[in-house]
Amino acid sequence: MTAPTLAKLADGRDLLFFALAGHRPAPVADRRPLPKRDPDQSQLRFDRSTGQWVIVAALRQDRTYKPPPDQCPLCPGPTGLTTEIPAPDYDVVVFENRFPSLSGIGGLPPLGDGFTSAPGRGRCEVICFSSDHTGSFAELAPAHARLVVDAWRHRTAELMAAPGVEQVFCFENRGEEIGVTLAHPHGQIYGYPYLTPRTAAMLQQAREHRMRNGDNLFADLLAREVADGGRIVARTELFTAFVPFAARWPVEVHIYPNRFVHNLVELDEDELDGFARIYLDVLGRFDRMYAPAIGPLPYMSALHQFADIDAQADGYFHVELMSIRRSATKLKYLAASESAMDAFISDVTPESVAQRLRDLGGQLG
Amino acid sequence: MTAPTLAKLADGRDLLFFALAGHRPAPVADRRPLPKRDPDQSQLRFDRSTGQWVIVAALRQDRTYKPPPDQCPLCPGPTGLTTEIPAPDYDVVVFENRFPSLSGIGGLPPLGDGFTSAPGRGRCEVICFSSDHTGSFAELAPAHARLVVDAWRHRTAELMAAPGVEQVFCFENRGEEIGVTLAHPHGQIYGYPYLTPRTAAMLQQAREHRMRNGDNLFADLLAREVADGGRIVARTELFTAFVPFAARWPVEVHIYPNRFVHNLVELDEDELDGFARIYLDVLGRFDRMYAPAIGPLPYMSALHQFADIDAQADGYFHVELMSIRRSATKLKYLAASESAMDAFISDVTPESVAQRLRDLGGQLG
Repeated sequence: MTAPTLAKLADGRDLLFFALAGHRPAPVADRRPLPKRDPDQSQLRFDRSTGQWVIVAALRQDRTYKPPPDQCPLCPGPTGLTTEIPAPDYDVVVFENRFPSLSGIGGLPPLGDGFTSAPGRGRCEVICFSSDHTGSFAELAPAHARLVVDAWRHRTAELMAAPGVEQVFCFENRGEEIGVTLAHPHGQIYGYPYLTPRTAAMLQQAREHRMRNGDNLFADLLAREVADGGRIVARTELFTAFVPFAARWPVEVHIYPNRFVHNLVELDEDELDGFARIYLDVLGRFDRMYAPAIGPLPYMSALHQFADIDAQADGYFHVELMSIRRSATKLKYLAASESAMDAFISDVTPESVAQRLRDLGGQLG
Repeated sequence: MTAPTLAKLADGRDLLFFALAGHRPAPVADRRPLPKRDPDQSQLRFDRSTGQWVIVAALRQDRTYKPPPDQCPLCPGPTGLTTEIPAPDYDVVVFENRFPSLSGIGGLPPLGDGFTSAPGRGRCEVICFSSDHTGSFAELAPAHARLVVDAWRHRTAELMAAPGVEQVFCFENRGEEIGVTLAHPHGQIYGYPYLTPRTAAMLQQAREHRMRNGDNLFADLLAREVADGGRIVARTELFTAFVPFAARWPVEVHIYPNRFVHNLVELDEDELDGFARIYLDVLGRFDRMYAPAIGPLPYMSALHQFADIDAQADGYFHVELMSIRRSATKLKYLAASESAMDAFISDVTPESVAQRLRDLGGQLG
């Protein structure tokens, strides 16, 4: 991959252009009269009852909400006056979120016994997958999807090295049903100043497994899913996609590299291509699951990446994809059992979902 | 409280009538041709990647979904042919859920290194707060609300003593916005065969606090909220309602008894009355928050109760109420940060929500 082209937005935010072979980004000046950024625009608060950090980002209450297509802030803005991307066109861009939950440099405060809060340091970036306002990730050409993977990898490497960042999280929320406020195909990248609760729980389980069994928990899970076979959705020489044995969501697929790595940075060239391919394959199945009557499946995609440091050494890179659609007409809501107690109840068996996804056919051929 | 009147539904499920002073339940025979219950209708699966149990209850996919008002299964059915409650009327009833996530008696299987699953043993009950199809909890008369509290207390004592039940969870989901499929005012009571992940996390924090400081974490949190004052919503001699310092939800209120108890069973008569009063006060504020333009606030109410056993000794009974409504026109969705990483981002400051709720006025006089 060639290095991205760096530009600056009018209020000083970073903007990076990632280009397909033969393309050359041509940013223009961002001439919008943007207000100065508030360096203390969000807060971290520690919840002593659960031991978890909560981000309070009141500025997000006023973030851009379902604009009409001709005012989309993620489309190219050739005049430098209309959108977040001052350029006649682009392939993939990444820029700092104008309404960030986390921003600036700094770590966590020490925990006292009283109320502990701190400025919400960290990083929130937006990644636009394509300049095509009406597309979806699943419709990207393989080389374009690979460019997105390269951009994720670039941001992962850079943010993992940033001071105060403990965890880099690349993700996509897709669909109004899960609250997406901008239709243009895009994802987000968070640099949290703490290990998120779910990641901490996973690393704890993996550590205990290694102490007990001497091997890697996630490698063991993957091997058992492959041996069982009943929940496999797609499998190549390099990657495996399956519905996990204890899936929490009505549609849930995990994608693992067949080789243990901590994050995208550790994948080699073939694996990066292979990852783009199987990811497109799974998203294609999602898009076809309820089409054309209901439209594409709303989903969340979560890249679980780990730093190559002792505390995260047992972390195995994988993607967890999940949807709240439980039938053509019904959504799964996270009500009190899930929301208040973290106790998940699924209405479908993982085996039936895997069968359904297999039957939809893939592109790996 | 007088003992409830016990009846049986056509398929053998328990049905209990709780009556106001001077009322006498008059159940009739349930004459519906209900299918025999499947004793193995759900499954527990252990997620080794997080150390958490997941309930797979495929039968719930076909549960009653937004029936028209004249087919409401929670209204009284004087003929014994039309609803779940074969009686001309009732005050408060509790019955076993026809589409339970958990049923039958039994505990958890031992954890192996492979895929661990087991029948979904435990208990799922429905509690109807009133026979009035169009009411809400906040509109109940104080004596009626106290009867609901008595019913919760009765079920808590009975289910906590049931073999295999580790945690009793009384809760209410209210509003279509959070997926409620039956409009009739009702709640649910779960008897889980395991400690839920959030409860386990709370007990862990409380244990660590006690080892470090010698006192109770939750009592300390309550004392600090009272001393700070900025987030108090309502307070009586016996109870305190406040927005917690690190609230996760756009509207979140916790109600604590001022005296440390583990659960409803340990409250005395005055406290039971006081609990019903402050609970009505807070729900009344919720109902008025966006009325009349938007209608009553969708909410989840979660009673955090603990058993008086060593493993749960640090648990302090309290209620956590939360709503996903973040403005008159917008909902908070649990997207990837919350759903995949358990990392919550709130769009409003707890202090502003507390102020708003205080301004709405209360009923405590």
